[in-house]
Amino acid sequence: MVTMRDVAERAGVSIATVSFLLNDTKPVTPATRARIEQAMADLGYRRNVVARALASRRTRIIAMAYPALEHRFGMSTAEFFTAAAERAREQEYHLVLWPVGNDGVELRELLGQGLVDGVVLMEVQLADPRVEVLRETGTPFALIGRTTELDGLAHVDIDFDATIEAAVAHLHELGHRSLALISGDLADPRFHEYGPWVRSEAAYRRVMAEYGLRTVVEPCSDTPRAGREAAERLLQEHPDTTAILVANEYGALGVVSALKRLGRDIPADLSVLSLLMVPEVAALSDPELTFLRTPGSELGQLGIEALIRQLEGAAPLPPQLVPATLQPGDTVGPPPS
Amino acid sequence: MVTMRDVAERAGVSIATVSFLLNDTKPVTPATRARIEQAMADLGYRRNVVARALASRRTRIIAMAYPALEHRFGMSTAEFFTAAAERAREQEYHLVLWPVGNDGVELRELLGQGLVDGVVLMEVQLADPRVEVLRETGTPFALIGRTTELDGLAHVDIDFDATIEAAVAHLHELGHRSLALISGDLADPRFHEYGPWVRSEAAYRRVMAEYGLRTVVEPCSDTPRAGREAAERLLQEHPDTTAILVANEYGALGVVSALKRLGRDIPADLSVLSLLMVPEVAALSDPELTFLRTPGSELGQLGIEALIRQLEGAAPLPPQLVPATLQPGDTVGPPPS
Repeated sequence: MVTMRDVAERAGVSIATVSFLLNDTKPVTPATRARIEQAMADLGYRRNVVARALASRRTRIIAMAYPALEHRFGMSTAEFFTAAAERAREQEYHLVLWPVGNDGVELRELLGQGLVDGVVLMEVQLADPRVEVLRETGTPFALIGRTTELDGLAHVDIDFDATIEAAVAHLHELGHRSLALISGDLADPRFHEYGPWVRSEAAYRRVMAEYGLRTVVEPCSDTPRAGREAAERLLQEHPDTTAILVANEYGALGVVSALKRLGRDIPADLSVLSLLMVPEVAALSDPELTFLRTPGSELGQLGIEALIRQLEGAAPLPPQLVPATLQPGDTVGPPPS
Repeated sequence: MVTMRDVAERAGVSIATVSFLLNDTKPVTPATRARIEQAMADLGYRRNVVARALASRRTRIIAMAYPALEHRFGMSTAEFFTAAAERAREQEYHLVLWPVGNDGVELRELLGQGLVDGVVLMEVQLADPRVEVLRETGTPFALIGRTTELDGLAHVDIDFDATIEAAVAHLHELGHRSLALISGDLADPRFHEYGPWVRSEAAYRRVMAEYGLRTVVEPCSDTPRAGREAAERLLQEHPDTTAILVANEYGALGVVSALKRLGRDIPADLSVLSLLMVPEVAALSDPELTFLRTPGSELGQLGIEALIRQLEGAAPLPPQLVPATLQPGDTVGPPPS
């Protein structure tokens, strides 16, 4: 490997002078600069990221922060991360993954190390202590998700209103009038501020009211077992239900299992529509789920884009709300006649 | 934020002198060093990772490289990564995730940037071009998995022999004598060198021969649909099978679906034992799968440990082979009488 010493020898200057130039710590005359740059070119010296970082006061490293313990890193999170990592790399940034608690303590500690130029924050809570930490430390950041008070923060998110409108419209067109929502468990203290569940439930209530239909909401945490139990409760309390919307993806797998156990034919007796899901999870169900596809890749890329524009002083990316799109499957049909 | 300039002013030296000390580019007298260090302490100046990296020629950043396109980042990979990230952080390292192709081209490019001190390589192929790249570039590395020729390479892996022995012994004790393996699809060019499938299939053949039992192997790629098809083929060709071992986790979900579709009772008619799986995936099946738990957290931590010992010049970690452990579920019972 070519070192700074090699460059200094070839240029006929001291190592300290090369360091002055590379680290921008002391002015260097144009003639000396030219000699050093020529030597670097002759030797094929590539300034590594560390030297470049010290010179530019930037590391070109971005962190994606997501809550480690509160929400398991599943296939959907993987899709966000993989797309974000690829977009970052296209623009010559590195993406590091930071599993940090929701209270902001670990995030503050990590930021203090000076590793990253900015942060993309995932799984944003309606009131999020991590946003305060980012603000206080003056760290550039973008949100995938939304706090309640946005105050001009750079953000990208799912368009929950458009997503739920599309879901209800599809079922309504097929003739369904008794549509229940198996939602997230907002009573769970880890999730009572969890945007996707709060927003999808609110959108469901609003849209159903617009159609003049009755709302039924059954809370459920994000496991197949909880999904089975929620579906059993729902059918006991509201046996006339003909279509179930499910707001959490592992819960949806349990809903399908429970209906099969109860001897219900899907979709002849009951339709199941999963609201935010990736294809890999839909394929785990038998029959395969009809679902609204989470725009994970799009949001991962847009989140990185919003941040990099800040870092490079470009025009800010306007807030982006991306709807989930309906994907065909085998769990939705007309209601029983 | 306290800057190098603030330190220089307080110590009564030039910024260049502070830089000499921090970057170790030119000797500084003990008296000057003492003044600068006192000023740094007074002002609470914390050398950030970049300055420290330039001084020590180390970044304290480690990459975990995994094949992006060849193998989707699923729940098992997430378990490896999360455990590795936590262990790295305990030892004050950062872990970055590098999705790179199996041919080593992208890996070489990333290594050239000088970001990382070392690499943990996941999803190791039996003959792995990425290992050659790591060797040629002189990068310290550890493998999670094993190439055929190990030549003393630092590695940790699943103990496939012990895992398969435990699986077959368990089914044999219950009275099963017709045990088939639904294996990986080694005809797929992306996987013909994929260690976990090659090794588990070889171990199955060896152990069955020791028991004096007939071997049946059905290839299958890692999706529920492929699992359904493989199970259907298996039961047509070998209708006397009483227990199925499945070597790929999403395939196992399809095997359970297929048996239910065919009206077979699990486990009264047929037992299904998943060979390497995480609990989150086992819970996606109905009935929940009996499985041998992939030691993902252990291997993620051990892989980091093996690498950090190299980086810090400590005694090498001896190769670690960790068996998967049997976890109770609802898909294994005695054979039909």
